[in-house]
Amino acid sequence: MNKDFLSLKEKALKSLETDIDRVDKNILPLLEIINASDHFFTTSSCSGRVALMEIPEIGMKKDARFLGKWHDNIDMKEIKNALNKAKEGVMWFFAQPPILHIVADELKNAQELVKIGIASGFKNSVFKSVEGKIVIELASTERFDVPLGRDGFLFCDESYLSLLCDIGNEVLTKSKKKIKNLEKNLSKIIARI
Amino acid sequence: MNKDFLSLKEKALKSLETDIDRVDKNILPLLEIINASDHFFTTSSCSGRVALMEIPEIGMKKDARFLGKWHDNIDMKEIKNALNKAKEGVMWFFAQPPILHIVADELKNAQELVKIGIASGFKNSVFKSVEGKIVIELASTERFDVPLGRDGFLFCDESYLSLLCDIGNEVLTKSKKKIKNLEKNLSKIIARI
Repeated sequence: MNKDFLSLKEKALKSLETDIDRVDKNILPLLEIINASDHFFTTSSCSGRVALMEIPEIGMKKDARFLGKWHDNIDMKEIKNALNKAKEGVMWFFAQPPILHIVADELKNAQELVKIGIASGFKNSVFKSVEGKIVIELASTERFDVPLGRDGFLFCDESYLSLLCDIGNEVLTKSKKKIKNLEKNLSKIIARI
Repeated sequence: MNKDFLSLKEKALKSLETDIDRVDKNILPLLEIINASDHFFTTSSCSGRVALMEIPEIGMKKDARFLGKWHDNIDMKEIKNALNKAKEGVMWFFAQPPILHIVADELKNAQELVKIGIASGFKNSVFKSVEGKIVIELASTERFDVPLGRDGFLFCDESYLSLLCDIGNEVLTKSKKKIKNLEKNLSKIIARI
């Protein structure tokens, strides 16, 4: 067993314990299953979310500002309240699928986990780093990235926003189902890796 | 040198030559730089594009139908003509950044290429497969995925479509710049890998 891996895992689990109130409850059982394995630990995760942001230029997420983010079903009132905070830059409405970052002790174990991820519907599962720290990302595909307007001014009307709310809620519902599916598949297999 | 790698590379280069008219001219010089290296070959690529599709359910890209796709600047007339072909399912407007799939002979060479990709603004560069065939994906981040309506009926108006056209053209312009940047960086370094 790799000494670096063990000490990194210890730190990651402590930090997860400290921040436990900030972790979405929908994904906690899955994190526990992965962290119970000797070969893996989780570093960050999201159970799927919808978010409103202001971004000065396309792709420049580092300069972005959150207007609102939600892990559970949204309604138009919440969306409109958040949009009222918009000031400068392009306003974007995002729906994002579940995503997990996991460190593995060895490449062959990482491969197993990526395979299980893909077979469980997390079709964007990849290796982010394969030297030193082995990091994989398990992610699903359901998403939208929609520009809504600029400098606080909306370029779409209420009925369109309402369609996005519906599709956003659909992404959240699908995300929760996919997490349960991965949880089920992993709990059967992970002890054998 | 791996025999499998060499025979796969030979096949890939032949197929690229056969399909050369279907490859976007903006990305050809970059493909040539990568394929000139003993350690790599390209399998598929896109220089960045905007596309209109009909998709029966979110995330189900395999059942999707193209209404139109473009690698060069678009205008409202083209968009409206393509939307007129819509029949069934949710209509989506996509803008996608440049993306390249590359096979490497060894993991350490793949690592070098992913590093150069990330440093050149292809921030979504990852390893798709690390056993048997080593496959990496170099991709940038600029994109949108916008639902426009359902069953041929638009949920947004012309001024909103026009905003999307503008942002789509911005994605295409940025994509071309990023390809040139990666081309410049790779041509300096790739001979040393």
